[in-house]
Amino acid sequence: MNLLLLQPENMLSENLAEISGRQVQHIHETLNVEAGCQLTVGLLNERIGRATLLDLQKDSARLEIEWTSNSPVPLPLTLIIGLPRPKMLKRIIQTATTMGVKELYFINSWKVEKSFWQSPWLSDEKLLENCILGLEQAKDTIMPKIHLRKLFKPFVEDELAAISEGSLKLLAHPITEKACPANIQSQTTLIIGPEGGFTPYEISKLEEVGFETVHLGSRILRVETAVPVLLGRLFQS
Amino acid sequence: MNLLLLQPENMLSENLAEISGRQVQHIHETLNVEAGCQLTVGLLNERIGRATLLDLQKDSARLEIEWTSNSPVPLPLTLIIGLPRPKMLKRIIQTATTMGVKELYFINSWKVEKSFWQSPWLSDEKLLENCILGLEQAKDTIMPKIHLRKLFKPFVEDELAAISEGSLKLLAHPITEKACPANIQSQTTLIIGPEGGFTPYEISKLEEVGFETVHLGSRILRVETAVPVLLGRLFQS
Repeated sequence: MNLLLLQPENMLSENLAEISGRQVQHIHETLNVEAGCQLTVGLLNERIGRATLLDLQKDSARLEIEWTSNSPVPLPLTLIIGLPRPKMLKRIIQTATTMGVKELYFINSWKVEKSFWQSPWLSDEKLLENCILGLEQAKDTIMPKIHLRKLFKPFVEDELAAISEGSLKLLAHPITEKACPANIQSQTTLIIGPEGGFTPYEISKLEEVGFETVHLGSRILRVETAVPVLLGRLFQS
Repeated sequence: MNLLLLQPENMLSENLAEISGRQVQHIHETLNVEAGCQLTVGLLNERIGRATLLDLQKDSARLEIEWTSNSPVPLPLTLIIGLPRPKMLKRIIQTATTMGVKELYFINSWKVEKSFWQSPWLSDEKLLENCILGLEQAKDTIMPKIHLRKLFKPFVEDELAAISEGSLKLLAHPITEKACPANIQSQTTLIIGPEGGFTPYEISKLEEVGFETVHLGSRILRVETAVPVLLGRLFQS
């Protein structure tokens, strides 16, 4: 946690907040600091500031905050991923959030196991929890939007054209001629398949919407590795 | 597993191998194929080929192999990382191996918890196991060398100059002026700190050996995310 993310309900006034639970535990156990110390804080979807710990109890603390800066610039990217297995899902959400993704779709595909859609990690509460961990890591405050689409064909036929309109449309696929471009600045929609990849039918459906297949070299990466490699390559800060 | 990695002891002759255990289980449970089918195989530190499943039993199988190609080109990189916590260690080894790292050092640093050095994941057997998983993912056969250095100062003062001689010397560090270069082709030594980073003393010791600090932008990445982002950025296949 490089930033303590405050929710509107934590705010007692514009410059005074009260926290409890996990965040206070983190102050005691990981930061190991005392009243009077300073922390970096952010208010959800708002600014970032320096907070002074005013009153640190076992289960609660008060913070006096001086707001100093805006949150970092988001990636100009909509990221669409074949729903990964639950243990990967959590890390992928955290990684994408930390790297600045604000529009994240998880979609169905032939090789997505049906049971993955039953995962408790897809509950609103768990999605929010992993986004918060990602934001706190990146010192960001802007909550990403996560969209779940359990049907491939209606998503591709009815929604994808509008979602990706005006953007560079890339489809990560190991077996193709063109290498993934690097250091682009333009608005992009990037689709990454599930483990095992999309089927030829699915690839052709995505190509019909204007997506171009691009590869990352001969080494086949796991989805959880491909996400940071692709984002780091496309958008070099 | 995109390639089945054979060990010398699996080879009955130049073109005939016998496998058992995890690999046969994988054929039954994940690939779900039958005798007569073809698989991609590689021989440890040797070539890659197409194998025909000759005789598939519950616990063993024989493969007839036609050797077809060399393993993919390794990254021109020595990677040095502050020893991460055990659950991250495993993923970092797999990721680095999949991406083509062949020289990997885990070193001590002020912010590495002493208990991390007691992890069972540092046993020769577990290190080998995770390297194999990384190679099988990447369709690679060349086993990386993993080196453990439990003392920071002797490593930096007595070994690091020789290890990094003639290479580009980069030290990933969030708070510095220079952005990490991209798409370099030259031999590189890259150092990544532990969670929480190196201390100013450690940074200055590494700078004395000629390492230059470089950042990846304002977002602070977890080590397990920084590794694929850095490797993907430095070496764009």
